[in-house]
Amino acid sequence: MPAPVLPEKDALEETTAPVRLERDALGELSVPAGAYYGIHSLRAARNFPVSGLPVHPALLRALALVKQAAAAANVHAGLLDPETAAAIGRAAAEVAAGKWLDQFIVDALQGGAGTSTNMNMNEVLANRAIEILGGNKGDYRLVHPINHVNLSQSTNDVYPTALKVAAIRLVLALSEELARLQGALQAREAEFAGVLKLGRTELQDAVPVTLGQECGAWAEAVARDRWRLYKVEERLRQVNLGGTAVGTGLNARKKYIFRVVEELRTLTGLGLARAENMIDATQNADVFVEVSGLVKAAAVNLAKIAGDLRLLSSGPAGGLGEINLPAVQAGSSIMPGKINPVITEMVTQVSFQVICSDQAVTLAAASGQLELNAFLPLVAHNLLSGLEMLANAVAIFNRRCIAGITANEENCRRWLRQSRCEATALVPYIGYEQAGRLVEAAAGKNRDIREAALAAGLFTAEELAAVFAPAELTRPGIAGSRRLKHRLPTL
Amino acid sequence: MPAPVLPEKDALEETTAPVRLERDALGELSVPAGAYYGIHSLRAARNFPVSGLPVHPALLRALALVKQAAAAANVHAGLLDPETAAAIGRAAAEVAAGKWLDQFIVDALQGGAGTSTNMNMNEVLANRAIEILGGNKGDYRLVHPINHVNLSQSTNDVYPTALKVAAIRLVLALSEELARLQGALQAREAEFAGVLKLGRTELQDAVPVTLGQECGAWAEAVARDRWRLYKVEERLRQVNLGGTAVGTGLNARKKYIFRVVEELRTLTGLGLARAENMIDATQNADVFVEVSGLVKAAAVNLAKIAGDLRLLSSGPAGGLGEINLPAVQAGSSIMPGKINPVITEMVTQVSFQVICSDQAVTLAAASGQLELNAFLPLVAHNLLSGLEMLANAVAIFNRRCIAGITANEENCRRWLRQSRCEATALVPYIGYEQAGRLVEAAAGKNRDIREAALAAGLFTAEELAAVFAPAELTRPGIAGSRRLKHRLPTL
Amino acid sequence: MPAPVLPEKDALEETTAPVRLERDALGELSVPAGAYYGIHSLRAARNFPVSGLPVHPALLRALALVKQAAAAANVHAGLLDPETAAAIGRAAAEVAAGKWLDQFIVDALQGGAGTSTNMNMNEVLANRAIEILGGNKGDYRLVHPINHVNLSQSTNDVYPTALKVAAIRLVLALSEELARLQGALQAREAEFAGVLKLGRTELQDAVPVTLGQECGAWAEAVARDRWRLYKVEERLRQVNLGGTAVGTGLNARKKYIFRVVEELRTLTGLGLARAENMIDATQNADVFVEVSGLVKAAAVNLAKIAGDLRLLSSGPAGGLGEINLPAVQAGSSIMPGKINPVITEMVTQVSFQVICSDQAVTLAAASGQLELNAFLPLVAHNLLSGLEMLANAVAIFNRRCIAGITANEENCRRWLRQSRCEATALVPYIGYEQAGRLVEAAAGKNRDIREAALAAGLFTAEELAAVFAPAELTRPGIAGSRRLKHRLPTL
Amino acid sequence: MPAPVLPEKDALEETTAPVRLERDALGELSVPAGAYYGIHSLRAARNFPVSGLPVHPALLRALALVKQAAAAANVHAGLLDPETAAAIGRAAAEVAAGKWLDQFIVDALQGGAGTSTNMNMNEVLANRAIEILGGNKGDYRLVHPINHVNLSQSTNDVYPTALKVAAIRLVLALSEELARLQGALQAREAEFAGVLKLGRTELQDAVPVTLGQECGAWAEAVARDRWRLYKVEERLRQVNLGGTAVGTGLNARKKYIFRVVEELRTLTGLGLARAENMIDATQNADVFVEVSGLVKAAAVNLAKIAGDLRLLSSGPAGGLGEINLPAVQAGSSIMPGKINPVITEMVTQVSFQVICSDQAVTLAAASGQLELNAFLPLVAHNLLSGLEMLANAVAIFNRRCIAGITANEENCRRWLRQSRCEATALVPYIGYEQAGRLVEAAAGKNRDIREAALAAGLFTAEELAAVFAPAELTRPGIAGSRRLKHRLPTL
Repeated sequence: MPAPVLPEKDALEETTAPVRLERDALGELSVPAGAYYGIHSLRAARNFPVSGLPVHPALLRALALVKQAAAAANVHAGLLDPETAAAIGRAAAEVAAGKWLDQFIVDALQGGAGTSTNMNMNEVLANRAIEILGGNKGDYRLVHPINHVNLSQSTNDVYPTALKVAAIRLVLALSEELARLQGALQAREAEFAGVLKLGRTELQDAVPVTLGQECGAWAEAVARDRWRLYKVEERLRQVNLGGTAVGTGLNARKKYIFRVVEELRTLTGLGLARAENMIDATQNADVFVEVSGLVKAAAVNLAKIAGDLRLLSSGPAGGLGEINLPAVQAGSSIMPGKINPVITEMVTQVSFQVICSDQAVTLAAASGQLELNAFLPLVAHNLLSGLEMLANAVAIFNRRCIAGITANEENCRRWLRQSRCEATALVPYIGYEQAGRLVEAAAGKNRDIREAALAAGLFTAEELAAVFAPAELTRPGIAGSRRLKHRLPTL
Repeated sequence: MPAPVLPEKDALEETTAPVRLERDALGELSVPAGAYYGIHSLRAARNFPVSGLPVHPALLRALALVKQAAAAANVHAGLLDPETAAAIGRAAAEVAAGKWLDQFIVDALQGGAGTSTNMNMNEVLANRAIEILGGNKGDYRLVHPINHVNLSQSTNDVYPTALKVAAIRLVLALSEELARLQGALQAREAEFAGVLKLGRTELQDAVPVTLGQECGAWAEAVARDRWRLYKVEERLRQVNLGGTAVGTGLNARKKYIFRVVEELRTLTGLGLARAENMIDATQNADVFVEVSGLVKAAAVNLAKIAGDLRLLSSGPAGGLGEINLPAVQAGSSIMPGKINPVITEMVTQVSFQVICSDQAVTLAAASGQLELNAFLPLVAHNLLSGLEMLANAVAIFNRRCIAGITANEENCRRWLRQSRCEATALVPYIGYEQAGRLVEAAAGKNRDIREAALAAGLFTAEELAAVFAPAELTRPGIAGSRRLKHRLPTL
Repeated sequence: MPAPVLPEKDALEETTAPVRLERDALGELSVPAGAYYGIHSLRAARNFPVSGLPVHPALLRALALVKQAAAAANVHAGLLDPETAAAIGRAAAEVAAGKWLDQFIVDALQGGAGTSTNMNMNEVLANRAIEILGGNKGDYRLVHPINHVNLSQSTNDVYPTALKVAAIRLVLALSEELARLQGALQAREAEFAGVLKLGRTELQDAVPVTLGQECGAWAEAVARDRWRLYKVEERLRQVNLGGTAVGTGLNARKKYIFRVVEELRTLTGLGLARAENMIDATQNADVFVEVSGLVKAAAVNLAKIAGDLRLLSSGPAGGLGEINLPAVQAGSSIMPGKINPVITEMVTQVSFQVICSDQAVTLAAASGQLELNAFLPLVAHNLLSGLEMLANAVAIFNRRCIAGITANEENCRRWLRQSRCEATALVPYIGYEQAGRLVEAAAGKNRDIREAALAAGLFTAEELAAVFAPAELTRPGIAGSRRLKHRLPTL
Repeated sequence: MPAPVLPEKDALEETTAPVRLERDALGELSVPAGAYYGIHSLRAARNFPVSGLPVHPALLRALALVKQAAAAANVHAGLLDPETAAAIGRAAAEVAAGKWLDQFIVDALQGGAGTSTNMNMNEVLANRAIEILGGNKGDYRLVHPINHVNLSQSTNDVYPTALKVAAIRLVLALSEELARLQGALQAREAEFAGVLKLGRTELQDAVPVTLGQECGAWAEAVARDRWRLYKVEERLRQVNLGGTAVGTGLNARKKYIFRVVEELRTLTGLGLARAENMIDATQNADVFVEVSGLVKAAAVNLAKIAGDLRLLSSGPAGGLGEINLPAVQAGSSIMPGKINPVITEMVTQVSFQVICSDQAVTLAAASGQLELNAFLPLVAHNLLSGLEMLANAVAIFNRRCIAGITANEENCRRWLRQSRCEATALVPYIGYEQAGRLVEAAAGKNRDIREAALAAGLFTAEELAAVFAPAELTRPGIAGSRRLKHRLPTL
């Protein structure tokens, strides 16, 4: 018999610890006396025991900064007395620094467009501020979660704003990890610049490249990712803070509205700006789709690189074996000595997960209705956790895999020689069809292409040496053309 | 400046607590003296600090049962002495019952096809068995993680087997929650059988239905989901346990192979069977795609139902307002008295998440290569967590939303009257085109369709009453045809 | 400057060909005199010049059968005179046989839940029936598109019904192609039963298998797909025909309702049945998600097999080169003699396309609202075209790739010998750790595992021969255990 | 019995029309004498009868321009005589202008990384050039498909280059359509600036907005899309033309390489540039993922807007009915007079299709291996057809829907009054909790919020008029604060 999924009676209700009574429009509830959260958080925690996942800490920390900015702006607008504001501000700064995160008890996939996360924050900051001011938790006459902490705000403006701040921060962190990865790949590019090897298209023998060039191509793709993400701040910097419920700014005083983003800009050090059309910024989530799509592009590149590394390191004896990945753990519980490319597999899996997170962001964004997108919590969860795990994956990839790659030059040489990939370099001299016949002939007699060309009397050994020089084969131009100019067709 | 994503030095290394030294092919490592896990787990935990998500407990518990079965089968095959096996079996039973789960320290998105989870299990069971036998943790001469606990096994057979067991259990749990939801919807179907209302297609006024019929249609869809999932056990019951590394069964004795699935069948109570082709069952993950697709179908139905509930409960004054959803928490931090359909939004979000998990399962399954699919940990994470959160969502949906729905009959009546949806019922008598003109005329003069039909002299009031009787309008057949038979066209 | 996407004036309007005038509620329009379609089709064609893709012929042919069934049932119910019905029936049979398909001018991605396709069908059948009865196209007094052809029907019941019929037929066709593929793979399984080779997990050398076993594992996966799809008819056979607009059956006479599905069953030869809850069947599209998910599972298996074939045939000289795929076309416009695995790449691409079609089916199905899913045309387009292209891909795969695969036994042998994969077979005799040291030693001295074992004095040459016999290595049990029983550890 | 999917014998083979014989490495084949395509095209057409979809014309036209540029650059490099080049150039210009498109007979989902499309182009241009030079089709001594038309090129550089050119052009076309849509929405914004109405969050009554503001929010989202896409040219402008097989530029002369992109720049008028790292640009497809993600963001906005329009126009009598969409066709085959929001449904469907195309682009891009991505044909098909159908959808949306929207001011007013949404505007004066009680009281007595506030003696009628003035309610600030300053709390 399958275990019951959800306990019939909520575990939270059963506590015997000391409690305080709180009240809202739906009635009374006992809150643990020591809790910074309050009745709204508790109701939400009971309504949504669904994924077991917490709200992403980056979102909570950013939301705390928004609250800190709002408190300051409310003072500026003459709405909040400086002492209360200072207490709220200090409480918010603590959360922004990572404190009290265990007081955020509402599930990541909560319904309600983020209201419960906002309420949870309001209650935690109120109770912490009360404490700072020397009061007892729950004595909301001192600091009220809504009338003071949430003053001039709506979930619908603070939540998307916090999400943008959190996303910018994580995007920048990912961008930095990608920069390090790019550097590591470029180091390999330099290190392996002299390792000539077989290039493969569609997994079939193609034309020569160097192992350094392969690393360089990966580095270039990562550079593009890094650049894209670095520029993302521009896409996310327009916030609807001050727009309140639907972006019209109802109930927020102008003095507050014109100040609050400036406060947040100072607190975050980010180039935030108030959206010109806050109604749009409240209801439309396309910027998250845009950003998520760019993150997905990075995931795609990482999946491609990780897959290439598995191909190149396949073996050790029964595969391509052109490179060796660092051994980071035993590979098998049954096959002794087996080492698997586990770091690259982790990178692939994280990339796939991020690709799917992008789908979740997309579905959520496309499902907005009229003045609000109720599914921003789904956007937040997928975007932020995707960003974080991708950054972690890149950091690990870098440190535990890329940094330790070594070349297996012997195998590189062997594949190159065994393949007849240099035939292409002869096409300018003898044409596509004759080169094709040469490949067939070489295959038939199990010769390499040089031997076949020599045997066919098409080139001298010297000429072949000139054509097949590594640098000639891997840089733009007709290989050997300086030496064999006379053999090139003229019009 | 963004915070560093991954600490340069692994936190796990920095402990000052007492340690024991362990050794593997890569060298020595200090393991916390009190830990049940060992060096392989520790290396993996350090290799994969990526998502912060634990391996799903349902998978761990199922894997413990697999180990318990293997120990028994090893005794049967004369490979393991009964005392050691009993200690392993007891340790495994403890984990299967939910104990020691904090000792599983490897990330859910680990690379390596599940080897690290298997190694973690082997080490925990070995150390716990050592303890049971009176030894000291780490003294693997008593019970060895690989030579004893993993005896006759490979990750590649125990891991997929455990995944199937875990999936069957969670699928059945989901199926039961869906059964309850079906029951609750059928209760509403009965309760609202008499509430006649406007049916809408493409959100435009269509023809009459009852609110009970709407609930009945949802119930029927859920019944289909329930049935599909109930049958899923058949799809997952074929396991490759005994196939070892690639499904050929290398290194496992026949006596073991022919016994181990039977042991697992007994332990789980599930109708498991050894796959005829264990090589196939080791490398192909299509059954997980199949099952995930069926779970996704349930998610699709839930998203549709949740969306319908939001439409029908929209308002309270400025929307359709045909039903009321139970108020479970305050809806807004700025708009007093606002109650939002938060439970339905949570259901939609979970459904979207499950739709995306299906994508992850698909990508992972399609990326298998040759004798193994290295990405089963991604399959496991997405399939199992999707199943669990969907079951939770259904349970909440049922208890905190469906059970408390009330009808707003006044609004149902008003919409029905204001619309001219009954015009369709007149088509059999007056034809499509004339009925169309009648709708236009009614619209022009702001009349309802009965008034317009009467004014146009097309029907008597009596005739209209016969046609527009609720039961006539919502059951198969020509509305009013018994009374107005003479007015129906004959050939 | 980019070209204009959509012509400002609709091309269809500009004809100088002879026309007839038709009229609907929105006014008059000129229809080409020779057209079987009429004003509703024309309006829709002008409203939706969007994808350029036609409605899938399988859907049109199935819809024609539905119309034929409806005409017969209308006669049975005394609603339609037999002569008119016969003409409609003959016209419908012609379309069902593939005639007049060019008269279906509405885009596949039309809005309106399929109404335009239904209208197009009504008009084509009406005009063709008029012609059959000796009248002039457009003279709807003879046969009226709505009053006669669409009699007792709604788009909302005929369209989903036709979609199910079309899907069943294409699913069966795919299932048959998969059966042929299974057969071809089983033939390879038998052919290559004796080709011992290296098995690879995570692309790393693992343990021995035969090439026949690899083909057998693919065949088994395909057998599962075939079976799944063969059973799909059960999932799709419940139709809402007779339910009219929302499934209540309004305006359809009972005599008609109880007859029409029977007629359709006879015409199609499929085991169709009237859904018990036609309201559900009208609005919920989860069965299409279910079926699409099963098709996707087949796509996943095909992608996996195609990828494996590319890996095994990589080279010819610089890759694994264990098999050769048939050369079906020149592979490169620049590299002479290059042959690429193009058929497998096509299969992969089609698989990816089908995976994405499943996503479209899912989005559409999840977006149904209240009494109808307006997005069935999207479901139809993606499901049916996905089914057809997958069936085509399988047929090509079978005929132009699988049938012509040859083994490269020399390479198979070489990889096997070079790898030290047989070390695993020694574990039962010498334990995991000692076997691991042996692998290290062999790697250090570039020996194969047999040489290393011999050099280490662990086994005699005879013993090694017994352990490493092919049949011993690839079937369940301890390799060589009969011969080396005494060396196996006992308790 | 299901129809055979793929004819056993290829239809193309059965022609009795006059033929010419052609030959390649695989043997001889009869080509229709009048065909511009040749043996390579024919083989590919027979290998890939899979989707029935042609290669996108935008890709073919762009590829023709690439060939034209290459011919000119080959003359410049002294590789091609001017007369031959002129003939090739003229033939290419014809194809670029849309001629001979019926000669491209290879399926869109062909395997082989685009080689078959390139070969098809080479053959068509060669034969057309031969004709221009007065020769007979098939006489490749005059102009050879590979040695002349494909000179200095590889599929692997010309195909991605052409794809980028085609994508830029279609993106710009889409961007222009979006600009028109933005304009139309802004016109509605101005037109409906005075229509005060209920704003809804989570489909629940929230606070007042104007219908013009709603249109303005949509316009702003579309403006973002337009801007994003306008900037995309930058992302796609780096081409690998000159890189030949793997990006090293093997076999292309430097003089050619340094000229060919310049020629293409001139021909296209686009700011193309040679990629610094052509090896990267040959193998990595992330830029297509990036662009596809931006297109998807536009699709998401369109889906949201289309959904909103269906909500606002729901009814006409039994829904919100705040706006009327233009009637573009009859809505039902059974319900007379029904008009459905079909254009918006088409827009939604196209958006969903584009969302799924993005998935296909992603899968293809992530599946690149080593020096090439073999799945670019899948990228091309999905990206280009998605772009085109989205541009078409936007054009239709604009012309047949947005342009004709009218406001139903009476309904707007009614909802506003019936809801108690203005309560929020009172919060600054009386606090969140008292306002909440007021809403409850009003609901209990079925009063609107003004009446309730008046009855409670909280405000005078004058004060309420000042607070509830439309301009006060929908612009930033405390509604009525100038008039009621004294009633606002001070510190």
